[in-house]
Amino acid sequence: MSGTLYGVGLGPGDPDLITLKAARLIGNATTIAYPTLAGGDSFARAIAADLIPEGAHEIRMDVPMTTAREPAQAAYDKGAADIANALKTGQNVVCLCEGDPFFYGSFMYLFARLARDFDVEVIPGVSSVTACAAEARMPLAARNERLTILPGPLPEDELRTRIDGAESVAIMKVGRHLPKIRAVLDDLNLTAQATYIERASLPEQKVLPLAEAPEKAPYFSMILLTKGADPWL
Amino acid sequence: MSGTLYGVGLGPGDPDLITLKAARLIGNATTIAYPTLAGGDSFARAIAADLIPEGAHEIRMDVPMTTAREPAQAAYDKGAADIANALKTGQNVVCLCEGDPFFYGSFMYLFARLARDFDVEVIPGVSSVTACAAEARMPLAARNERLTILPGPLPEDELRTRIDGAESVAIMKVGRHLPKIRAVLDDLNLTAQATYIERASLPEQKVLPLAEAPEKAPYFSMILLTKGADPWL
Repeated sequence: MSGTLYGVGLGPGDPDLITLKAARLIGNATTIAYPTLAGGDSFARAIAADLIPEGAHEIRMDVPMTTAREPAQAAYDKGAADIANALKTGQNVVCLCEGDPFFYGSFMYLFARLARDFDVEVIPGVSSVTACAAEARMPLAARNERLTILPGPLPEDELRTRIDGAESVAIMKVGRHLPKIRAVLDDLNLTAQATYIERASLPEQKVLPLAEAPEKAPYFSMILLTKGADPWL
Repeated sequence: MSGTLYGVGLGPGDPDLITLKAARLIGNATTIAYPTLAGGDSFARAIAADLIPEGAHEIRMDVPMTTAREPAQAAYDKGAADIANALKTGQNVVCLCEGDPFFYGSFMYLFARLARDFDVEVIPGVSSVTACAAEARMPLAARNERLTILPGPLPEDELRTRIDGAESVAIMKVGRHLPKIRAVLDDLNLTAQATYIERASLPEQKVLPLAEAPEKAPYFSMILLTKGADPWL
């Protein structure tokens, strides 16, 4: 009898934003798995650190720092194989996921590799989009408003077209794409309506009007934009 | 010294998807507030029921069942006044919000009325979008994919245009708009890629291919659509 793989969303970073279900699964885990960036620290593990039982077996997936697809996929191949080995011995595996597992999360690569052969349960988490909205005090969408979520790495032309045709917009994974995004928003005359948020919910969080955003943005940064004038009143 | 208003996201319905922070705030509350539908039951209160301390003072906001704007706004005016009265006596007020407070949540109407005069803290919650994705086992977005969130009450033409130009799509508040949405998706040849979810995370949850969805959908139902062919592999 194989074990179950739990893909557990941890929320945006503040351990207090972990759900009761995720906290219980982590607290009872005998095997946990998580990605690390190029063998360095794991943000997911850091969020859950206080809940991980002493002596739990840990499966690290060292995801290389590259935009190329193959090396990352090879890392998930190895991670999935390690997790499968644990599941086959009857162990449950709790995979720690920043934010939500199915929303720009690396867990979906494990899901694609393992869901056909093993029981997999996905536990949703607070996404960075609503966490940023809460910290920026910007309601995202009310009534019949639309919300468009765009990744910062999109080409400039596509960003421009998508933002121009949208109402509320969340631009994820800003990082090194900040200058490009700034240029697009300036060009569309939307800079004054945009807010920059980095490391939402963590002690080092920043929330700034886009015009005052730093020159260099970390990967975990976002721009929120609402075009309505106090549309939620 | 006035109290603080906490807008607390409760997630999609399973009390186990409440965050640790929200659970603590509710568990320590002396005054809670929540909307009810036309004086009936409150879904928000039901989600949090096991956490609410005995003897907590409860502020009910009876939101009328209508799409007209004024009666609902009058209900929020009264709710905001009741909450303000409690805050002025130095009490903190914990406002219970289904899902996330700033994502199609009625809390934004209270925020608009009270945030200028009182301390307001927003605690994000798991949104129904990622909860539905988890239950439907449909990863929402990876890498550079875009996600568009649309309310079901949008006019048919606008739905058609928005869905046609999008990648992954979540259609919220399906309810009585199901026949219209079905027609649009049929017309765009997208029915086979669409999944219907109602009451995600609750015991009575349904997850069905759109073609097998019931004739009548409750308000808390959603359609998820991903156009990519196994795009997360």
